[in-house]
Amino acid sequence: MSEAKSRARRLLDRFRRRGSTTEETLDRLVARILGHHESMSRRADAATVAEIYLALGEEERLRFLHMLGREFHTDPAAIDDAIAAVQAAPDATERREAEARLRVALTPAANHLFDLFAGVDGGVKLLVDLRADLLRHGDPEFARIGHELYLYLMRLFDAGRLELRRITWDAPASLLEKLIAYEAVHAIGSWADLKNRLDSDRRCYAFFHAAMPDEPLVFVEIALTAGIAKELPPLLDEEAPDLDPALADTAVFYSISNCQPGLVDIKLGTALIKQVVDELGRELPSLHQFVTLSPIPGFRRWLETQAVEELSVEEPGGMQLLSLCARYLTTLADDRVLDPVANFHLSNGAMLERLNWSADLSPLGRERSSGVMANYQYEPDRMAERAEAYATRGQVAMSDSVREALVWKS
Amino acid sequence: MSEAKSRARRLLDRFRRRGSTTEETLDRLVARILGHHESMSRRADAATVAEIYLALGEEERLRFLHMLGREFHTDPAAIDDAIAAVQAAPDATERREAEARLRVALTPAANHLFDLFAGVDGGVKLLVDLRADLLRHGDPEFARIGHELYLYLMRLFDAGRLELRRITWDAPASLLEKLIAYEAVHAIGSWADLKNRLDSDRRCYAFFHAAMPDEPLVFVEIALTAGIAKELPPLLDEEAPDLDPALADTAVFYSISNCQPGLVDIKLGTALIKQVVDELGRELPSLHQFVTLSPIPGFRRWLETQAVEELSVEEPGGMQLLSLCARYLTTLADDRVLDPVANFHLSNGAMLERLNWSADLSPLGRERSSGVMANYQYEPDRMAERAEAYATRGQVAMSDSVREALVWKS
Amino acid sequence: MSEAKSRARRLLDRFRRRGSTTEETLDRLVARILGHHESMSRRADAATVAEIYLALGEEERLRFLHMLGREFHTDPAAIDDAIAAVQAAPDATERREAEARLRVALTPAANHLFDLFAGVDGGVKLLVDLRADLLRHGDPEFARIGHELYLYLMRLFDAGRLELRRITWDAPASLLEKLIAYEAVHAIGSWADLKNRLDSDRRCYAFFHAAMPDEPLVFVEIALTAGIAKELPPLLDEEAPDLDPALADTAVFYSISNCQPGLVDIKLGTALIKQVVDELGRELPSLHQFVTLSPIPGFRRWLETQAVEELSVEEPGGMQLLSLCARYLTTLADDRVLDPVANFHLSNGAMLERLNWSADLSPLGRERSSGVMANYQYEPDRMAERAEAYATRGQVAMSDSVREALVWKS
Amino acid sequence: MSEAKSRARRLLDRFRRRGSTTEETLDRLVARILGHHESMSRRADAATVAEIYLALGEEERLRFLHMLGREFHTDPAAIDDAIAAVQAAPDATERREAEARLRVALTPAANHLFDLFAGVDGGVKLLVDLRADLLRHGDPEFARIGHELYLYLMRLFDAGRLELRRITWDAPASLLEKLIAYEAVHAIGSWADLKNRLDSDRRCYAFFHAAMPDEPLVFVEIALTAGIAKELPPLLDEEAPDLDPALADTAVFYSISNCQPGLVDIKLGTALIKQVVDELGRELPSLHQFVTLSPIPGFRRWLETQAVEELSVEEPGGMQLLSLCARYLTTLADDRVLDPVANFHLSNGAMLERLNWSADLSPLGRERSSGVMANYQYEPDRMAERAEAYATRGQVAMSDSVREALVWKS
Repeated sequence: MSEAKSRARRLLDRFRRRGSTTEETLDRLVARILGHHESMSRRADAATVAEIYLALGEEERLRFLHMLGREFHTDPAAIDDAIAAVQAAPDATERREAEARLRVALTPAANHLFDLFAGVDGGVKLLVDLRADLLRHGDPEFARIGHELYLYLMRLFDAGRLELRRITWDAPASLLEKLIAYEAVHAIGSWADLKNRLDSDRRCYAFFHAAMPDEPLVFVEIALTAGIAKELPPLLDEEAPDLDPALADTAVFYSISNCQPGLVDIKLGTALIKQVVDELGRELPSLHQFVTLSPIPGFRRWLETQAVEELSVEEPGGMQLLSLCARYLTTLADDRVLDPVANFHLSNGAMLERLNWSADLSPLGRERSSGVMANYQYEPDRMAERAEAYATRGQVAMSDSVREALVWKS
Repeated sequence: MSEAKSRARRLLDRFRRRGSTTEETLDRLVARILGHHESMSRRADAATVAEIYLALGEEERLRFLHMLGREFHTDPAAIDDAIAAVQAAPDATERREAEARLRVALTPAANHLFDLFAGVDGGVKLLVDLRADLLRHGDPEFARIGHELYLYLMRLFDAGRLELRRITWDAPASLLEKLIAYEAVHAIGSWADLKNRLDSDRRCYAFFHAAMPDEPLVFVEIALTAGIAKELPPLLDEEAPDLDPALADTAVFYSISNCQPGLVDIKLGTALIKQVVDELGRELPSLHQFVTLSPIPGFRRWLETQAVEELSVEEPGGMQLLSLCARYLTTLADDRVLDPVANFHLSNGAMLERLNWSADLSPLGRERSSGVMANYQYEPDRMAERAEAYATRGQVAMSDSVREALVWKS
Repeated sequence: MSEAKSRARRLLDRFRRRGSTTEETLDRLVARILGHHESMSRRADAATVAEIYLALGEEERLRFLHMLGREFHTDPAAIDDAIAAVQAAPDATERREAEARLRVALTPAANHLFDLFAGVDGGVKLLVDLRADLLRHGDPEFARIGHELYLYLMRLFDAGRLELRRITWDAPASLLEKLIAYEAVHAIGSWADLKNRLDSDRRCYAFFHAAMPDEPLVFVEIALTAGIAKELPPLLDEEAPDLDPALADTAVFYSISNCQPGLVDIKLGTALIKQVVDELGRELPSLHQFVTLSPIPGFRRWLETQAVEELSVEEPGGMQLLSLCARYLTTLADDRVLDPVANFHLSNGAMLERLNWSADLSPLGRERSSGVMANYQYEPDRMAERAEAYATRGQVAMSDSVREALVWKS
Repeated sequence: MSEAKSRARRLLDRFRRRGSTTEETLDRLVARILGHHESMSRRADAATVAEIYLALGEEERLRFLHMLGREFHTDPAAIDDAIAAVQAAPDATERREAEARLRVALTPAANHLFDLFAGVDGGVKLLVDLRADLLRHGDPEFARIGHELYLYLMRLFDAGRLELRRITWDAPASLLEKLIAYEAVHAIGSWADLKNRLDSDRRCYAFFHAAMPDEPLVFVEIALTAGIAKELPPLLDEEAPDLDPALADTAVFYSISNCQPGLVDIKLGTALIKQVVDELGRELPSLHQFVTLSPIPGFRRWLETQAVEELSVEEPGGMQLLSLCARYLTTLADDRVLDPVANFHLSNGAMLERLNWSADLSPLGRERSSGVMANYQYEPDRMAERAEAYATRGQVAMSDSVREALVWKS
C-alpha cells in the first residue's frame, strides 16, 4: 500500500470515528474548497480530496461523482439576469462588461476545482482517473462535467507540455512493470520478453507529464531493421540476434499503447509518433523509412459479413485475401475508413504501404485478421498534406502495391 | 546577445528581405496560428512569434499589441444569436447545450493563443512580458486582453505550481545578477553586498516556474537573529560577524521584491512568505518568531498633510513620532490601511508588532518615513484568522506596545 | 553485445587482418604502454587493452595473464647493485637517497600499469576481473602479481571511497537483474520474489564504486520486523502483509552477497553492515535491534563427524540439536570459529544472540544445518570491543540463551 | 566561517579544556591512526585531523608538519636486517619473499596515512594543502615526506581521473569568485570583467577532482576569433561586440592559471590544453587553429643583460625588438629554453608561431617584455612529435616568420 493511500485511509478513519460517512466527508471537503477564500487551506483540502478519492472503492467513487456533477450545474435564473443586462447595455463598453459577467454566469461554479486539483500533489492523476471513472459509468448526468473535464485535460496534456522520454532496460523496474501492464497490442509475457523489446536494436518512447512523473501516458515500441518487417514473429523472438543500429534503414513501429483510460481522445498517440519520427531521424541518420507493422482488428469480422466465394487459402501469397483486405481498409463510411487502426494512421498522415499475408499466426492474429497485417508508412515531408486530404476529402493514401491488390482478379 | 534573440533576428531579417515589415510578419504568423488545424505547425509558429516578440523594439511591440487586442474582440451578432437560442430552448437539455454554445460565443477567438504560447519554449515568458507591456501602455483598448491575460496568468502561476528554491552564494552568477537588478527595497550595491546577504546566518528564497526556470518571480531576504531586529544597518553591514543559525530564535524578513512586472497582483509575495515561514520552521526548530523589518513608504508624505505641532525630534525614543506613525499605520480608508506595505502584511494575516525609531537613517529611509521602520509578526497559527478579520471587518492586529504608542500623549 | 565489446572486437579484427594474433596485439600494446613517455597515448592504449581483455575468451585471457605476470618480475642484478649502494652510503643523506632507489628497484616495473588502468574508462572493472581470473586459475606464477593487485584493490576499494546506495523497486531493471544473478544466500526465484524483497518494510543496500557505477559490489537484504525473526519462510513469503516501517523495532539482515569474485578478502561486507546499521538507526529511530538471520553452512557436515548419540528429533524445541549447534558455533580452531558465517559476524563485532530450530526447512537449509539458523546481534556501542576480544583473545560473544544451550544436558 | 572549520574549532576547544595543546592533540590523533587496527575509527580520526589541520594557524601547522615528517623516517636497523635476509635467501622463491619484506621496510610506516586521508571528506584537499605548506617552508627535513606526497598526488591527480568542466556565467558565484582570486596571468578586475570573459564568443574550461568538487585545479581562458589575435586589449575589452562562435576559425588561449599551489609540477596545464583542444575541435568544427597569446615574462630582464646597441623603438614594426625576442625565446640552457612560458608550451608540443609588437602595453606587459607577446600554435597531429623532439634533442619548433625574425639584420 502506497504512502498516499495509507494517509488517506487514516483521514477517512478519523472522519469515521467522528461519525461521518466517507461521502459526507468528501461532501464537506468539497464545500469547504468551493467556499474558501484563503488559498493555502483550499489547496490542502484539495490534496486531501485527491488522496481520499484515489483510496475509495467503486461504490463510493460513484457517489462522489454524482455529488461533483451536481456542482457543475449553472443557475438558469442568474443566466437570464445576465442576458437581460447584456441586452439592456446602453453602449459598447457597458455591453462588453455585461458580456464578461454573462460568461462567468455560464461557467459552472465548480469549474475552478480542476485548477485547484491541477495544483496539488497527485491532483493531475486524480483528474485523469476522474475522467476514466466518468467514462466508464457513462451516466448521462455526467455529460457536462465530462465535457468540461475533457476540455481541461486537452489543454493540460497539450503535446507541448509533455516530455518525450526514451525507455531502456536501465529504466526503473517500477516503470517497466507498468509497460507490461499497459501493453495493449501484443501482450508482454515476461520480463525476458520485455528485455528483448528494449535491446540495442529496439527503441521504446513514452510521453510523460511533469505532474505524473512516474506514469507513462502512451508508449510506442520500435524495431530497427534492414528493410520493412513483413511479419511479427521475428520481432518478438527473444533469441533473434541484434542488429547494429547503425546498419538499420527502417524503423518499424509495431506497438502503440495508451496507458491512461482517462486520456482517451486526447490524441497523444498521434503526437508521439510524430515526435519519435523526428527524434529517430536525428539520432540515426541512416534511417530512411518509418513504417508500422499493424494489426487489422476488424478485418475478419467484416469479412464474415461479405458474400465472398470460398477463400482459396492454399493459393500462393494469399492474393485473394489481401485483395479483400485492401478493399476493407480503403472503404469509407461516415468519412472515415472502417478499420480503427487504419483510421488512426491515415488521420496522422501515413500511407497504407503494404499488406502482409501470414504475418501474425497467433490465435489472436488469426481471429482478428486471418493472420494479415499492414504496414503504414510515415513520410515526414508528406504527412501534413496526406492528413489534410484524408480529413477533408476522405482520400486514402496508398502505395502502388496496395492499389494493385485492390484491383486484383483471381 | 542570447541565442534565442539572435535566432529571432535572423527570422526577421529573412522576412524583411522578402519585403515584409515586422508587423506584417507577426500579423501573418498570428493569422496562420489562429487558422491552422494541425497542431505541430501551430506550435512552431507560436514559438517563432514568441522569439520575435522578445526581440522587438518598443514601437513594434505596441503595434503588435494593438493587433492582438483586435483579435480579442467578440462578435456581437453571434452573441445575440446564441442568446436567442438559449431563450428559445424547449427543454432543459437543449437549453444546456445552447448555454454551452453561448459561452463559446462569449469567449474571444484568440483566447486559445495563450494556451498555445504556454506550450512552447519561451512562451510563458512571452505571456508575462506581454502583460507587462499592456500594463505599461495602459491603453483602454487593451482592457479586455489585459483582463483575460490576468486571469490566465493567475491560473498558470498558482502557488501550487511554483517551485520554492533557496538561493545561496552557490547559485549561478547569471541568476544572482538578476537579484541585484530586481531588488526593490534596499538596493544591492555590489557583489560583496549580495554575498553578505547570502551568508550562513541569512536565507534567501524565491519562487520559480518550471517554464521559466532561470527567472526568479519574487524573492525574499531574511536574517536569522537572536531577538527582533530593530534597525536596518546591522543587517546590511558586510563586516558584521555571522551568527550560528542554530542559536537564532528569530527570522527577520527585511526585503521582498517582485521580479516580473507582468505578474503584478498575482499575490506571489503572500504565498512566498507563508511557504518560507513553514520551510524555516522545519529547517530550524529553534526559530520561534517570524517578523519583518519593513519600510513605511507613505508615512512622511502623510505626516506632511497632518496639522501636527512642531515635532520635538530631540525627545528621547521619538515617542511623539512613533505615536503618529502608529496612527498612520492603523488608519483605514476604503476598508484598507493607508500604507501599502502595512496593507500587504495585514492582508497576509500578520500583526503590527513594533515601531522602531531611527531604524533606517539612509536618505531614502529619512525621506520615506523619517527613519522609522515597522516589524510585522507572522504567527503561523493565527494568520488565517487575522487575515479574515482584516479583510472582512477592517480589524488591524497590533501588539500592546503599538496600542500604547497609539494612545501616547506627550 | 555491448558497445565496448563490439569496439574491442573491431580492434582485434583490425590487428588480425594485419596478421597479428590477439596475444601479439596485447603484448605490443602493453610494451607500448610501459615504454611510452607521453601520457595521453598511454592512456588510450590502456583503454584499448581494457576493452580487448574484457572481450577475450578463457584461453586468450590466460595467455595474457602469463605475459602480465612476467612483467611483474624484478631484476635481481639491479636489486643487488642498489643494495650495494645503500651499504656504501657515506652519510645519512646519501643513504636515504640510496634507499629510495632500492625501493624503486624492488617495485615491479609493471606496477604502475594498475594506476594507468585505474585512470581509464572500464579500467577499474578490468582490474577487478583480472584478479578474479588470477584467483580462479590459481597458478603459482601469478602469486606476485596477484598479491600486488590485492594490495592495490584494497586501497582502491577502501570503504571511504565507496558509495552506499539504497536499492528499491525504482532502481534500473538492469541493476536489479544483477541482484537476482548475484544473490548467494537465498536464491531470488523471480521478479515477483525480488519485488517482495524491496517492499516498504524491506531495505536493500549496496556499495558502489564511482568507476563502476552500474556494478553493485556487495549488497545486503533486510526485513523490518516487530521482534527478532526466528525463521526464514515469513521473510520470503510474497503474500505476507507489509509492516508499517514506523512500527518496526528490529532490522533483520537475512542475506548478504558479494557480487565481484575479484574483490574477495577486501572486507566489503563488514564495512557494509556497519554503515547500514548507522544509516538505519538515523532513518528509523524506532529501531533498537540489528540482528541477522543467518545460515550455518558447516553445521550438518560437522555434526556427521561427531560421535553423537541418536538425535531425538521429536524432542520438543530441538534442544539437543541446538545444544550441539551452540557447541559447533563456539568451537575454535586456529583462533577462529569453525563456521565461516559465524567467523564473519564475530570478526565484525557481533554477538551470537540465538539459535532457531526449524528455521529453514528448505532442502538446502536441511542439508546445511538440519534447518537450524542463527541470529547474530550487532550492538553499535559494543562492536569495536567485541571485534577486538574475538580477534586477539578468541573470545566469542554470546547471549545467555546460547550459553544455556551450550551447557544443556538432556 | 564554514561548518567544517567551526566543528574543528570545537574539537580543539574540547581538547584545550582538557589541558592539551593543539600539537599534542594532533600528535595523539596521528598516533591513534597509525596504531589502530579497526578501519572505521581510523577513518573518523583521519577526518578529525583533516578538519583540525585546515583550521590551524601558520605556527601550529609548521609544528604538525615536523611531527609528520618524523613519522616518515624508516628504521635503518630493520632495513639492514631485511637486506641480510635477501642476501641469505637460499632460492628464488625465498628471495622473492625477502625482497617483498625489504620493500615494506623501505616504505615509511606513515605512508598509508595518505591513503587514509584520501578516503575521508576533505582529506584530498588536506593532502594538497599539506604539500603547499611543505613547499612554502622548504625545510630540508621535509624532503622525504614532500617527495612521497608528490608521487602520491601525481597518481591521485592523474589526468584520467580529472573532470573537464566548461565554466560559464551560469556557474555558481562561489566558484566564479575563485577564478577571480586564482587568475594569475591577466588579473580579473571585477565581476563585469569576468562576465566578459565568459561571453558567448569565449570559453573557459577547468579541471576538477571528484573529491574536491568545488575547487578548480587549473583553468584556461579562450577567445574565439576570426584569425590569430595579435594583441591583448581587444580580448579584455568589455565593450567589444561578440563574435558568432560559428564564424570563428581560431581559438586563442590567452590565460592559463594553476589554482592549487600544492599541485605544482603535476603537469595539469599540459593535460588541460590537450583535452580542451580536442573538446573545442568537436564542438566547433569550423575552428582550425589553436593558438595562445602568451606573455614572455623573462624577456625584458634578459634583454638588460645583453650588450645590445641602443634600441630604435621608433623603427616601424619593432623588427629589432622582435628579432632579439626570437633569440631569447629559442636560446637553450640546460636543454630547455630560458623563458618558462615558452618552455611550458614547447614541452607540450606547440610551435612558436609569431611574435607581436605592442601587444600588451599595460605597465606589467611593458615591464615583463617591452609589450611583446607570443603566439604558440597547437597542431593536434604534430604535438606528440614536437614534444618528443624538444624533450630529447632540444629542437624548438618555430614558424617561418619567427625564423626570419631570428636572422633579421637592421
